[in-house]
Amino acid sequence: MRVLVYGAGQLAQMMYLAGAPLGIEVEAVDVSSDTVVHPVSKLPLDASLEQAIEAADALTVEFEHVPERLLEQAEKSNKLMPSMEAILVGADRVREKQLLETLQIPNCSHRIVTSLDELDACISALGDKLIIKASRDGYDGYGQWRLTSADQLEEIKQALDGLDLSAVPLVVEKMLSFERELSLIGVRSQNGDIKVYPIAENLHYQGQLHVSVAPAPKVDAALQQQAEDIFKRLADGMQYTGVLAVEMFQCGDQLLVNELAPRVHNSGHWTLTGSDTSQFENHLRAVTGLPLGDTGARSPAAMINIIGCGTFSRELLSIPGCHLHWYGKTVRDKRKMGHINLTAENYQMLGHKMQQLVAYVPGEAFPKLAEEAQKLSSWK
Amino acid sequence: MRVLVYGAGQLAQMMYLAGAPLGIEVEAVDVSSDTVVHPVSKLPLDASLEQAIEAADALTVEFEHVPERLLEQAEKSNKLMPSMEAILVGADRVREKQLLETLQIPNCSHRIVTSLDELDACISALGDKLIIKASRDGYDGYGQWRLTSADQLEEIKQALDGLDLSAVPLVVEKMLSFERELSLIGVRSQNGDIKVYPIAENLHYQGQLHVSVAPAPKVDAALQQQAEDIFKRLADGMQYTGVLAVEMFQCGDQLLVNELAPRVHNSGHWTLTGSDTSQFENHLRAVTGLPLGDTGARSPAAMINIIGCGTFSRELLSIPGCHLHWYGKTVRDKRKMGHINLTAENYQMLGHKMQQLVAYVPGEAFPKLAEEAQKLSSWK
Repeated sequence: MRVLVYGAGQLAQMMYLAGAPLGIEVEAVDVSSDTVVHPVSKLPLDASLEQAIEAADALTVEFEHVPERLLEQAEKSNKLMPSMEAILVGADRVREKQLLETLQIPNCSHRIVTSLDELDACISALGDKLIIKASRDGYDGYGQWRLTSADQLEEIKQALDGLDLSAVPLVVEKMLSFERELSLIGVRSQNGDIKVYPIAENLHYQGQLHVSVAPAPKVDAALQQQAEDIFKRLADGMQYTGVLAVEMFQCGDQLLVNELAPRVHNSGHWTLTGSDTSQFENHLRAVTGLPLGDTGARSPAAMINIIGCGTFSRELLSIPGCHLHWYGKTVRDKRKMGHINLTAENYQMLGHKMQQLVAYVPGEAFPKLAEEAQKLSSWK
Repeated sequence: MRVLVYGAGQLAQMMYLAGAPLGIEVEAVDVSSDTVVHPVSKLPLDASLEQAIEAADALTVEFEHVPERLLEQAEKSNKLMPSMEAILVGADRVREKQLLETLQIPNCSHRIVTSLDELDACISALGDKLIIKASRDGYDGYGQWRLTSADQLEEIKQALDGLDLSAVPLVVEKMLSFERELSLIGVRSQNGDIKVYPIAENLHYQGQLHVSVAPAPKVDAALQQQAEDIFKRLADGMQYTGVLAVEMFQCGDQLLVNELAPRVHNSGHWTLTGSDTSQFENHLRAVTGLPLGDTGARSPAAMINIIGCGTFSRELLSIPGCHLHWYGKTVRDKRKMGHINLTAENYQMLGHKMQQLVAYVPGEAFPKLAEEAQKLSSWK
């Protein structure tokens, strides 16, 4: 079988590696040049995009910001999974909020803004602690502005001046006081079977994910169930096929959905060693019509992103249960270069292993590691 | 880093898949044409063998029957691991027996025969239940003859007539009464660190491995230790680098070494899901100088070979903990097409899962499955 993935980054690479044992040949589309490439070597393959679409059993995406003309072409083949509509929900915060409202899924109080004049009304409605987000093409912390008091409004308006808000509206959210960021990764098959992984806890720094711990500590059955119910409503509501990531805030015992990612997700990389079936394998199983695999956690697991950094000691592999996933890219500031997966018998041991890891990596590139290591190792 | 593997079959493919996450690029040599190929697609890469040797950080093999002229060329680069000498031990039963004798490792009573006249003396020395093996190029059950009574000797002599026994001697072994076949897979690093996986029990049919169960049931600490001691003596004795497989017979509480394979081995495929670090990853870690990974078993695991068969229901993936490893080859009689890995909480559950598997595969191609499933599922 063949699966064509739009996007040729690390997610396509990990899908390729998960597909090969299943006899699924994964090819990638470099969307900047419309060329079909090998997902690992990135070398061009001997097929035009049209030929590759024709030869594929399924088409899918590794990121939601695929040019719409390509998505339209893909959708026409009737082989695109998830659907173009679901992908655009992930690419456009207006569509995302509309879906959440339609499905009555709890999310942050917000307003859609298509003209700067409407910002004053947002303050009246939501208060003066706001996060203002571009509804499209905002990614990894770019395209966001924070308002922490009403007197910053003029400054923000100046920063936003010149944006075509009727074409790309803003989503203005009330800044939440939440305990932590969680995500649920799940998968839905073509015939509606659903399997979800345990919730992960995500630690961000400057808008980027740095560490995930799964199963998230201190998640009771009710919270896991709440997340699963949200997932089911979303996945069924979109008639979704494949892996879907749901990012949430925990406020007390309530979960508010923050963002959806219609694809395999960084906060699910722990599944490569922490679960019986990785998110990459399950995504491929779903889009090719194979039965879904087990999504239980084998043991506590942590995923630590390697961001903007290529120099660390490979001796980190001497930590038992430590695995490196290197993406083979040129080092650039803020670029996700790879990740490290750790598993351990319990959270305390996981914390100890993270403490060991601290010795092998430059601290400035891993700003959340030592703190989280300390927290887990003193776990009771 | 780059590793060049001699041989372009499934073992090179699985090394490639294990290498990519570590940033290790694995290339394969098709030894029938001296061309460098991609280990998964088998398409030629844009490099001559000489260029690939030059560009590689390490050279290794996926099988021991690499033409000696290629091994000599590889050895000259000083990057071949394990050494040519160790590889030839696996390719030549005379060298193998000599090594076992030199290192005083228990093995089957045997004689080396370089002329048919010496066969009579073998019967006097070893009895008339014998296995006669070509010392080279015998593989997967080919090149073996069985003598079960002295009056078959003439017939056997006729079958062997015309072989150049001075060039390729015979190894004549006393037929053993043994309880079962076991194997130990272990790995030795360049600086002498050793890690071994738990012993696996192997079920053969017509000279081919069909099922491995690991950890082998009913192995006490003394037996595991005995196997580990054998491994250590062999690996240290050869100054070995990489994964080495030791096939053994269990006779009461004694282990007799039957065969060595200087490479990753079919009876270690269970490590892909059953252990934290697969044999493929550990082999690559060893030959590239990375720390070795954890070799413990996560839980009982079974590996079931798919031999000479391409038609089975992909619904087998609905069994929890079931993973398919398909090698992408054209179906041929007796050809290893892929394997199925199963893991379960305990042996009884493993047996139940194997029983479920029976429903998805054609029985004639899986002659050991139902029996072993029955045995494990009634495990006390």
